[in-house]
Amino acid sequence: MKLFRFGGPGQEKPGALDKDGIRRDLSSVIDDIAGAALSREAIARLAALDLSGFPVVPDSERLGACVGAVGNFIGVGLNYADHAVEAGLPIPTEPILFNKAPSCIGGPNDDIILPRGSTKTDWEVELALVIGEPASYVEEADVPEIIAGYCICNDVSERAFQNERGGQWMKGKGCPTFGPLGPWLVTPDEIADVQNLGLWLSVNGQEMQNGTTGTMIFGVYQLVSHISQFMILEPGDVITTGTPPGVGFGMKPPLYLKAGDVIELGVGGLGTQHQRVVQPIDHADDGG
Amino acid sequence: MKLFRFGGPGQEKPGALDKDGIRRDLSSVIDDIAGAALSREAIARLAALDLSGFPVVPDSERLGACVGAVGNFIGVGLNYADHAVEAGLPIPTEPILFNKAPSCIGGPNDDIILPRGSTKTDWEVELALVIGEPASYVEEADVPEIIAGYCICNDVSERAFQNERGGQWMKGKGCPTFGPLGPWLVTPDEIADVQNLGLWLSVNGQEMQNGTTGTMIFGVYQLVSHISQFMILEPGDVITTGTPPGVGFGMKPPLYLKAGDVIELGVGGLGTQHQRVVQPIDHADDGG
Repeated sequence: MKLFRFGGPGQEKPGALDKDGIRRDLSSVIDDIAGAALSREAIARLAALDLSGFPVVPDSERLGACVGAVGNFIGVGLNYADHAVEAGLPIPTEPILFNKAPSCIGGPNDDIILPRGSTKTDWEVELALVIGEPASYVEEADVPEIIAGYCICNDVSERAFQNERGGQWMKGKGCPTFGPLGPWLVTPDEIADVQNLGLWLSVNGQEMQNGTTGTMIFGVYQLVSHISQFMILEPGDVITTGTPPGVGFGMKPPLYLKAGDVIELGVGGLGTQHQRVVQPIDHADDGG
Repeated sequence: MKLFRFGGPGQEKPGALDKDGIRRDLSSVIDDIAGAALSREAIARLAALDLSGFPVVPDSERLGACVGAVGNFIGVGLNYADHAVEAGLPIPTEPILFNKAPSCIGGPNDDIILPRGSTKTDWEVELALVIGEPASYVEEADVPEIIAGYCICNDVSERAFQNERGGQWMKGKGCPTFGPLGPWLVTPDEIADVQNLGLWLSVNGQEMQNGTTGTMIFGVYQLVSHISQFMILEPGDVITTGTPPGVGFGMKPPLYLKAGDVIELGVGGLGTQHQRVVQPIDHADDGG
């Protein structure tokens, strides 16, 4: 099943694609694609519905992030062997974890806003997963039971904020609009092999990244098990699992995003995202 | 005003101390001390109530964390000049930020559970603050408008997980029970000078930390303004502002927590916390 959220920012309603790929409005049966609605049982109830009777969502409706009320948004660094080489950094012996502020999450096709003072905003196509059940100290073999689904994440990153502003990567990872998720939250039954998915990203039509989850250093189940040794995972938590080679800071010379750029990206079976890069907003003191 | 939350874990109700220090149950007027209930307007409405008519909460009731539904729990590293010296690390030129998993948050007097495999679990008494209004790119002068209140945080840290497990501190900062908050969320009108509060912590009755917010490198308002340059802050986000000297890993030889230890800590005007350290739970695979 492919779940999605639609409507204005902060006002999203739940939906699902029916067997013909038509967008259907599920707001009569669930409040949101979030929290307890992500459990195996809750998703099984949705999967049993005949979606053809639900109202059609017009394609013109904005798509929001495919999951709501995210409590913890965890990133994994340097998780593709070929990307670690590109970054000039040693291949990690344990997963590198960092955090993205949940307030950075946006829809798959929303604009990416350059942060004020940014000179090094970069792209990263990634496979992300959404936790469906509370979990702590999970064995790798049990991980499939706690994954609600998969989606695309563009792990947008400001490299100067990440690396040159006094330690810990999160300063460059959670800026507003830096976490587009979606378009679809795809349930695991639709993914034949999560370690054999293509990932690609282009900027202004030029292909920049083209990889496969097959070159991950730490596989998806290993990552989730590892993270659960350090913290309780909760329904709605998102883990984005690292990026293949081809990011801007790995180029010689480095290439970063500027206003007007158009980013397109996709992961096999999960759909595509399309973002326009825009100037910082000057007077945002009234908040988000 | 001093707000608090009481009841079983995950089932907490809102309360406030009345003018005689008696705990009153506010669940008839607000659902939780969380989200929109943290706005200046919402808190002003509570402050205008005559609390003497509300039901008394027995002192025997467990206190939960003083804020619910925390979306982002941000820590500041090495923010006391004297603690940076103790840690043998250079004084930061910009605030060091890290993340604590919101799932680590607990009540002020709940047990601290040693994580599985932990050998270096350590204490850190800190002044924390809770965001009351959405905020982005906030000027230092405007920060007071967006702070809902202050509370104590024991920023419990596993130093081996933090420093020896492959980069980024968050692995040692967000283990279950590593974020006691409370007892009270104290509104800013009760704090004469947030940069002149004493902080202390003892283990088994022996004083380990005794400092003052006067030796912070980056003051509270400066920190909030700084963080808001990198991410949108949302109501219910918690920022814990660093610890003064006297942590276990700074001692020669280092001293870490073991099962049976008792920690007591306090911050001037914010109350005290009292925690017992307990063994890891062996079979927690069924989650949190």
